[in-house]
Amino acid sequence: MERPLILIVNDDGYEAKGLYAMVEAAKDFGEIVVIVPDSVRSGLGHAITMNDPFRIKLYREEDGIKYYRTNGTPVDCVKLGQKVVLRDRKIDLVLSGINHGSNSSVSVIYSGTVGAAIEASFDTAAIALSVQDYSSDADFTAAVHYGKIIVKSVLEKGLPPHVCLNVNVPKIPFEEIKGMKITRQTDGYWYEDMEKRVDPYGREYYWLTGYLVDTDHKEDSCEWALHHNYISIQPVHYDLTAYHAMNDIKYLENAQ
Amino acid sequence: MERPLILIVNDDGYEAKGLYAMVEAAKDFGEIVVIVPDSVRSGLGHAITMNDPFRIKLYREEDGIKYYRTNGTPVDCVKLGQKVVLRDRKIDLVLSGINHGSNSSVSVIYSGTVGAAIEASFDTAAIALSVQDYSSDADFTAAVHYGKIIVKSVLEKGLPPHVCLNVNVPKIPFEEIKGMKITRQTDGYWYEDMEKRVDPYGREYYWLTGYLVDTDHKEDSCEWALHHNYISIQPVHYDLTAYHAMNDIKYLENAQ
Repeated sequence: MERPLILIVNDDGYEAKGLYAMVEAAKDFGEIVVIVPDSVRSGLGHAITMNDPFRIKLYREEDGIKYYRTNGTPVDCVKLGQKVVLRDRKIDLVLSGINHGSNSSVSVIYSGTVGAAIEASFDTAAIALSVQDYSSDADFTAAVHYGKIIVKSVLEKGLPPHVCLNVNVPKIPFEEIKGMKITRQTDGYWYEDMEKRVDPYGREYYWLTGYLVDTDHKEDSCEWALHHNYISIQPVHYDLTAYHAMNDIKYLENAQ
Repeated sequence: MERPLILIVNDDGYEAKGLYAMVEAAKDFGEIVVIVPDSVRSGLGHAITMNDPFRIKLYREEDGIKYYRTNGTPVDCVKLGQKVVLRDRKIDLVLSGINHGSNSSVSVIYSGTVGAAIEASFDTAAIALSVQDYSSDADFTAAVHYGKIIVKSVLEKGLPPHVCLNVNVPKIPFEEIKGMKITRQTDGYWYEDMEKRVDPYGREYYWLTGYLVDTDHKEDSCEWALHHNYISIQPVHYDLTAYHAMNDIKYLENAQ
């Protein structure tokens, strides 16, 4: 039997510890190819590169795994996998991450890690995997352990068409994790500010700062799961239609 | 009575014809402030800038309207409006566009124009407005006409909380437009390819190319409306949970 073909992408770039943790989680289950950004590309959401061309470079080859890096975004990495590096081959699974930092609640719309998984879900099964720890030396023990279980299960049983998984792992010791929960997106928002500074030449500039505000707190939400020591598994799709609002705005059809 | 405060953003940058068309559509209904990228930033989706600071510059002042440009993304333009330029003021409406090029079907997830409207919808009413014509000299007659009607109606009647509008105008003469339809996102995907070229130094590079494939064709979809000479108004929200799939993946909770 042929081994599944697994494409690994991320948004933290080719030097991230989380990338090598994802390889560790996946390598027993198929043939692995890695395509990742050549620098940290956090917060890019579903961005694609339209006004510049792509470069792509094989930068490492180890244990039968080829590692490529590119100037593209996380979503571009998926497209470059499908149309350049793995052209004419069928990709069985796309894995995105392991991301340094949680992609729970509304972070999902800002996340390049999840964006790449959504992009892949047009064609294939896809999983975004993130840990609730932004540090470059984050502990991936639990993420690798449960990542293996999820990868194996998804390869065996598949996912519904055009649905990918947004998996988030709480920042607690491995032994304290109670299990995995299927969740929905926590309602909330980023409370943000712009920190004003002055450069050495007297000109103002601003840094984006902020934190997530949970306005939800219900037991089926992803933040609840993380706060109660569960791994959150949110099924994600790309239909942004607010069906519940269609009737409320019907008045616009007759506006003058 | 105080005039509504309207923030205009876009993704085509400060030189776009569509920006001035949006000002035209909005200026009778409130006080206008413009904050737009300092270059063309198409395809950025919900990208934010996390690894660089922002600069912002007042570049024009005309008819009582201040125009600012920034190195940020379309979503960043909204945040800079809320936290820097219009800090401590209540924004009543955010308008994004008028975009050169349609943001129907799955283009919604790649669109910086829609991304900015989604960002605004955490706080306020927001409308993304796009025409089905990518050319820099696109005809905005119909978009301005119907844009005025929509802006006026939304300022009067509001929108459901955390819902923004994704409005697309077909590329046909103004007289042929039959009216406005509330629609849902057309199911489809971008068929894409990577065009391979060789630079003057013998190195390969790739350009992203592609076209939208409509797999839907149903009468309530946005593409159907555009193809039948209607303006499409899709209500959009930021909950990406695939609720229909939650049961199908329940098996993962017990996977080992």
